[in-house]
Amino acid sequence: MQTPAILVNGQANELVSSLDRGLLFGDGLFETIAVRHGTPAFWDDHIRRLQHGCKVLRLACPDYSLLRTEVNGLVDAEEQCVIKIIVTRGAGGRGYSFDEQSPTRIIQKFPWPDHPREYTDVGINLTLCRFRLSQQSRLAQIKHLNRLEQVLARDEWKHEYQEGLVCDTQGNIIEATSSNVFFEVDGQLITPDLANCGVAGILRQQVIDYCRHHGIPLAIGNFGLNDMVRVEAMFVCNSIAGIWPVKRFNAMEVTRSVITERLMSVFNYP
Amino acid sequence: MQTPAILVNGQANELVSSLDRGLLFGDGLFETIAVRHGTPAFWDDHIRRLQHGCKVLRLACPDYSLLRTEVNGLVDAEEQCVIKIIVTRGAGGRGYSFDEQSPTRIIQKFPWPDHPREYTDVGINLTLCRFRLSQQSRLAQIKHLNRLEQVLARDEWKHEYQEGLVCDTQGNIIEATSSNVFFEVDGQLITPDLANCGVAGILRQQVIDYCRHHGIPLAIGNFGLNDMVRVEAMFVCNSIAGIWPVKRFNAMEVTRSVITERLMSVFNYP
Repeated sequence: MQTPAILVNGQANELVSSLDRGLLFGDGLFETIAVRHGTPAFWDDHIRRLQHGCKVLRLACPDYSLLRTEVNGLVDAEEQCVIKIIVTRGAGGRGYSFDEQSPTRIIQKFPWPDHPREYTDVGINLTLCRFRLSQQSRLAQIKHLNRLEQVLARDEWKHEYQEGLVCDTQGNIIEATSSNVFFEVDGQLITPDLANCGVAGILRQQVIDYCRHHGIPLAIGNFGLNDMVRVEAMFVCNSIAGIWPVKRFNAMEVTRSVITERLMSVFNYP
Repeated sequence: MQTPAILVNGQANELVSSLDRGLLFGDGLFETIAVRHGTPAFWDDHIRRLQHGCKVLRLACPDYSLLRTEVNGLVDAEEQCVIKIIVTRGAGGRGYSFDEQSPTRIIQKFPWPDHPREYTDVGINLTLCRFRLSQQSRLAQIKHLNRLEQVLARDEWKHEYQEGLVCDTQGNIIEATSSNVFFEVDGQLITPDLANCGVAGILRQQVIDYCRHHGIPLAIGNFGLNDMVRVEAMFVCNSIAGIWPVKRFNAMEVTRSVITERLMSVFNYP
């Protein structure tokens, strides 16, 4: 892999201190942002989620205009790439407690991933992960750096599937390992409630808002594996991939729906 | 704070890549080891826990004799200090999946903490954290780098208390933020079962083994706040502090017991 361009606290530099609490405890947050034509997509939404995460963790959030200036410094006009912003609580010692903070901000630029057209045109294969997410309302929805659960869930397959569906320890379907999930049942979209776990994806919220403004029936609630027998269509989404319809979930063939097509035409780049 | 002596992959160096999965996902493990007279205490136990953690995370564990050589290189004969070993899955890209691994090993030396004698001689003040630990059997007991729960629990007080007791989301008492906990009820020691959360401390296991070999009644099981009314004595323990008797838990005065005194005489350094 080519080393991506990286800024650490505004300086061109790949390295951080091994005493950084981001490494010691996963004490920080991140955002992964699609850049199209040199412009970060849904910038305000990403910044709002980052700021909310900082509030939850009592972490001093870097100035968002500084972040934007630094992102702009890494991205050429008309460029298509992925920007990852990491904010940690900065260097610490051995203990969990913290007083003053001088957060570390890291901006990394990655090449745009070359996902096969097939994933959008035909759909993806989705597996069911055996791994279950723990319920922790205090960390739900924010995009923090404690991602071992996702690492273990993702480790259950190699390349046979494009995504894995993950339930929580109570059996509620929550999300896929790197994306959110929507089900269509009786012409209504349902996406899992994330009060106790899961990441509140930026594109998930965009889809929710679009449906509400355009009269597409949508519910946010609990959804279990037993509800899968009623599913007429389903898709996963995230900021980078956009919307991927599911063509197969384990052994179950899934058709694609008019609603999925419509949302793809709104949110997927050509 | 004085910058501690640090080795990263054997080289004197404080820095790691910002693409290290330890930072990106907390994808790694750590051990905190007491060094007395130049010798790491309970070395084999720490290495066994680290190796077990690596197995759980499917992480290639560095050779333990290499780790020992590097620790010895940082520590002077007769020195008293704290050694922290961090092992991560090494540099990665954006995704959770991993194939080949080249783990990062970090060894940090810290000065011995100057805890007041009072903590052992008289005892500590313990508070009850409102924060609840999530239940995740797949990550329980191992000392992984996803420590946001401990950071949030520890953030509930400043210096009024020396430790905070933490329950899980089901109301079981699990541990303190940086130590394990033992209760004495009717002359028997009880320490919480860690099947679903908590860190299986090295000193906790030493105490368990000592009690079993010396006929001190001990049980490992579920223990709730409602059981606290029966508690005659309690202590917390970890590899660095040793055993600290609790003199006060919130508003409740706690006496110290013959068993606690005996264990302190065995495990606490003079």
